Amino acid sequence: MERYQVILAYDGAHFLGFQRQAKGRTVQGAFEAALRQIGWQGNTILAAGRTDSGVHAQGQVVAFDLEWQHSPDELLRALNSSLPPDVAVQAVKAAAADFHPRFHARARRYRYRILCQPARDPLRERYAWRVWPALSLEALQAAARQLPGEHDFAAFGAPPRPGESTTRSVFDASWQASGDELSFAICGNAFLYHMVRRLVFVQVMIGKGWLEVETIGRCLQNPALGPQLVRGLAPAQGLTLVEVSYPTSGEDNG
Amino acid sequence: MERYQVILAYDGAHFLGFQRQAKGRTVQGAFEAALRQIGWQGNTILAAGRTDSGVHAQGQVVAFDLEWQHSPDELLRALNSSLPPDVAVQAVKAAAADFHPRFHARARRYRYRILCQPARDPLRERYAWRVWPALSLEALQAAARQLPGEHDFAAFGAPPRPGESTTRSVFDASWQASGDELSFAICGNAFLYHMVRRLVFVQVMIGKGWLEVETIGRCLQNPALGPQLVRGLAPAQGLTLVEVSYPTSGEDNG
Repeated sequence: MERYQVILAYDGAHFLGFQRQAKGRTVQGAFEAALRQIGWQGNTILAAGRTDSGVHAQGQVVAFDLEWQHSPDELLRALNSSLPPDVAVQAVKAAAADFHPRFHARARRYRYRILCQPARDPLRERYAWRVWPALSLEALQAAARQLPGEHDFAAFGAPPRPGESTTRSVFDASWQASGDELSFAICGNAFLYHMVRRLVFVQVMIGKGWLEVETIGRCLQNPALGPQLVRGLAPAQGLTLVEVSYPTSGEDNG
Repeated sequence: MERYQVILAYDGAHFLGFQRQAKGRTVQGAFEAALRQIGWQGNTILAAGRTDSGVHAQGQVVAFDLEWQHSPDELLRALNSSLPPDVAVQAVKAAAADFHPRFHARARRYRYRILCQPARDPLRERYAWRVWPALSLEALQAAARQLPGEHDFAAFGAPPRPGESTTRSVFDASWQASGDELSFAICGNAFLYHMVRRLVFVQVMIGKGWLEVETIGRCLQNPALGPQLVRGLAPAQGLTLVEVSYPTSGEDNG
């Protein structure tokens, strides 16, 4: 029996989110079904994060214990041949026996895509939020510059369990434009429930000129302001979990 | 009654191609249904090209006659609110009464996307053909350089009706790489049935080193060679009809 660490990509459009549920199609459910086909008898896999219904992933990380006589590469191929077309393993490696993809994660990186276009665009809206009129890139960038640092993000999301800390560290946050697409990248140690989508929503309001740029800083200093200001949630299909980072094995897993 | 020219975008994944059929979901069928909801009583719309099942479009062009009391922009919004999520009107304008999107087209531009990656990639394979091991960009570019000009493309596709000319003019054809993505752009006056996907397939064989770079030139000089060499077809999901160009109205529609 060995523990394996797997990087998973999925198109969230037709999943009710990552976490297994009593009813409905989930990424965890699909992945565990594929694992069972190759002899896995565990109860549950471990995962770095629970993405919401409709959210995509390039770099979700999961772990499980498995009796496997072949190479990690053969495990990758075996899993990919059983998984449905909208989920795929990107990489497999053997991990320390106590490796936990959520507790050992140092950083998570998300990307949110916005499309500034007046008409619906079927080829790009699967992975983006269409917004029109176009947003001010300058205002978005000024808004994002207030995010890095250790802050109480209570205005922007709920903790995993009621009463837990709402303080998180954002390492970097920035907007980039390419043609009519805007892309928001944010990296932090961890995120509250719905935090990235709420941050995007408030920034879009700022980019439209409906909220002041300083709104974000004010909400970070006084989280009680949040509920008055931050009612909306950017739609799920624009969000992708890009990467989860871990300490190199020499640091604390060796 | 006025003739309108409409630019249409669609995600081809869930359509049995553009052209209306007795059974099955088609882009033409979906578009005509939306038109009927706003009072259209025609028999059929006109279109620049019939894309195959699974092929996408950013710039398909269609035309129809309609009694419409409002502006073209209001027509755009009315159509987009009736069309399903995977089809959308990008632009609407009034056209000359004899405007025909197929016969008046000067040029069509297609793009084909390839993804060079060892593992399946659910977020990108919807719009690309995954190929591994990676292809030689140099060989692809050398292959594409043989395409521009007026040639008999019989080796790469069938004419619209048996016995018709298989001569077509390619204005430009080139490959570009960006990270692990390769993109083939081709522009020509018109294309034979399956011609772009066959050209991509042969170039991929060249990029793998399985066919000589000169194969394309040889097939253009001697179309009888085609059937021996060109058996494959690049999958539909990598192909997008990007744009159809028309003479400016002063030239021959004025």
